[in-house]
Amino acid sequence: MASEEPSLPEMNRIRQAHKVLKEYIHYTPVMTSSSLDKFSGINLHFKCENFQKTGSFKIRGCMFAVDNFCKEKTIPPILVTHSSGNHGVALSKCAKIRGLQAHVIMPDTNKYKQSAVKANGAEIHLCGDSEQARVDMTNQIMKELGPAAVFISPHSDPDVIAGQGTVGIEILEQVPHVDAIVVAVSGGGLAAGICIAAKSIKPSIHIYAAEPESANDCAQSFAAKKRITLKTSPVTIADGLRQSVGTLTWPVLQEHLTDVITVTEEEIISAMYLSWERLKIIVEPSAAAAIAASFKLKHPSSSTGVQNVCVVVCGGNVDLASIPPKP
Amino acid sequence: MASEEPSLPEMNRIRQAHKVLKEYIHYTPVMTSSSLDKFSGINLHFKCENFQKTGSFKIRGCMFAVDNFCKEKTIPPILVTHSSGNHGVALSKCAKIRGLQAHVIMPDTNKYKQSAVKANGAEIHLCGDSEQARVDMTNQIMKELGPAAVFISPHSDPDVIAGQGTVGIEILEQVPHVDAIVVAVSGGGLAAGICIAAKSIKPSIHIYAAEPESANDCAQSFAAKKRITLKTSPVTIADGLRQSVGTLTWPVLQEHLTDVITVTEEEIISAMYLSWERLKIIVEPSAAAAIAASFKLKHPSSSTGVQNVCVVVCGGNVDLASIPPKP
Repeated sequence: MASEEPSLPEMNRIRQAHKVLKEYIHYTPVMTSSSLDKFSGINLHFKCENFQKTGSFKIRGCMFAVDNFCKEKTIPPILVTHSSGNHGVALSKCAKIRGLQAHVIMPDTNKYKQSAVKANGAEIHLCGDSEQARVDMTNQIMKELGPAAVFISPHSDPDVIAGQGTVGIEILEQVPHVDAIVVAVSGGGLAAGICIAAKSIKPSIHIYAAEPESANDCAQSFAAKKRITLKTSPVTIADGLRQSVGTLTWPVLQEHLTDVITVTEEEIISAMYLSWERLKIIVEPSAAAAIAASFKLKHPSSSTGVQNVCVVVCGGNVDLASIPPKP
Repeated sequence: MASEEPSLPEMNRIRQAHKVLKEYIHYTPVMTSSSLDKFSGINLHFKCENFQKTGSFKIRGCMFAVDNFCKEKTIPPILVTHSSGNHGVALSKCAKIRGLQAHVIMPDTNKYKQSAVKANGAEIHLCGDSEQARVDMTNQIMKELGPAAVFISPHSDPDVIAGQGTVGIEILEQVPHVDAIVVAVSGGGLAAGICIAAKSIKPSIHIYAAEPESANDCAQSFAAKKRITLKTSPVTIADGLRQSVGTLTWPVLQEHLTDVITVTEEEIISAMYLSWERLKIIVEPSAAAAIAASFKLKHPSSSTGVQNVCVVVCGGNVDLASIPPKP
């Protein structure tokens, strides 16, 4: 939506974001579980962004971008975004904090996330589940709102990526000995931000992206060494992982990822229940995708050699009424 | 099972327990939630014993009692207990840590807790759901095992009560400003231990016991000013709260409790789902009973005047396959 092509944030911008965000976000804990270590055969550390304000990491990027928009604009901006949920929840929270109007274009997939957006006082515009449907409705709403409207991209905005990258800074402050990070990928804002931050702090670290098999555009892109997008809206319980990697985030993922690990729906659901039972924390399916991927790092047939791993538990906003029963 | 009537532990014994336990247990965090504060009208703090080793506070009392038995005995004791689940899980863990045999008599109510006991290598003896059924089978097993068998009571043992009381010490180290603690009551070991510890440290503190309406022996006893026990096995989702308050724990509860708050099954289930959604942590129904009770502290018709409250989240061992759907 920006008139000129944005560029990726550098490490100093991520450090600046971390300073700005301190007053708005939780410094979330890292948890461990001896039973999950035994189960996976590696030492797992869980960065609990499910405990983050708004229930996911998304407020990091949102708040930093909104903060900068507020500095640039002379009139109060009207915030607009399209989102599968968590980015919309985060944007509505940022708007509430700043006393701004917000409009969120979202598919009708997660009632919990919808109610959170409403509770923050933002306006919801329900759209179809495809990427094109989201973009079309967003363009229309932006036009109707006029010049005060600013679009906060869920991933294709340097400040959003810088905000998400602060997760990488915290991980390497909290568990500096980890030799790998596993992070779920959709549009790629979180994964790209973590790549820039973590590789800058610890160049030897491995970063693995995790993806549902049915939304495996990043795995396809990684294999083909060029960005490939999904042609249809993927069917997966991981409602936060249905978008394709963006044009801004793809180059940094291509450069820095060690590999992309895909997981089946069964593996996601199983990892979700296992995390609920063993870690005693609520992780949403998108977070469970990363956890399921981490369980594959030491598979006998494809061991990666990593031993100390941090998994990003990206969110905990589960629509409990629509979760399939425990297998 | 002891030949002489045991006496309640004093504060110095609870402090001693806290020192001994340091190497075995987690110093669990206290969590807060602005949305639950808004919902309840008070400032809530959640002492997360669901994150405790074995998934509940029970390892505190168990480990302290086992530690002392090991010092007293010249031959390795064979540990025996009856338990609705969490105490059995804890005892089996203590046995594993110490390399001892353990036998757990438990009703067939919570598959998750059964599998945890098995995973720790203890032997399970399934019994009927009534208190009498448990006691009868325990007596039989003790007889069969001979003189090496020692019974670790879930609540009627001074060392078990001292161990559970360490939760009270930690609460007043972590959130010394709270003016009330809400704790679920069954046999009363946790509530009694917390009463002794918390009242010793901060005599002005209010302690509320929480109980399912269908297992309201403590509320009945509190009203009648004498110990009343349940005549039949209560039907409640809170599988950890089906026992009556014991003879050892009752006097300290009568002396120190401000009140007993009963909650319906609907209130327990609703509080459980609300905690999963807002706190993003797994609490078991017995813990949800205390959370539901805390929501009643500022009811317009019966406001207690307390404002800063710590709720003991006693455990997180949920049998996810058997939980009713979200209301």
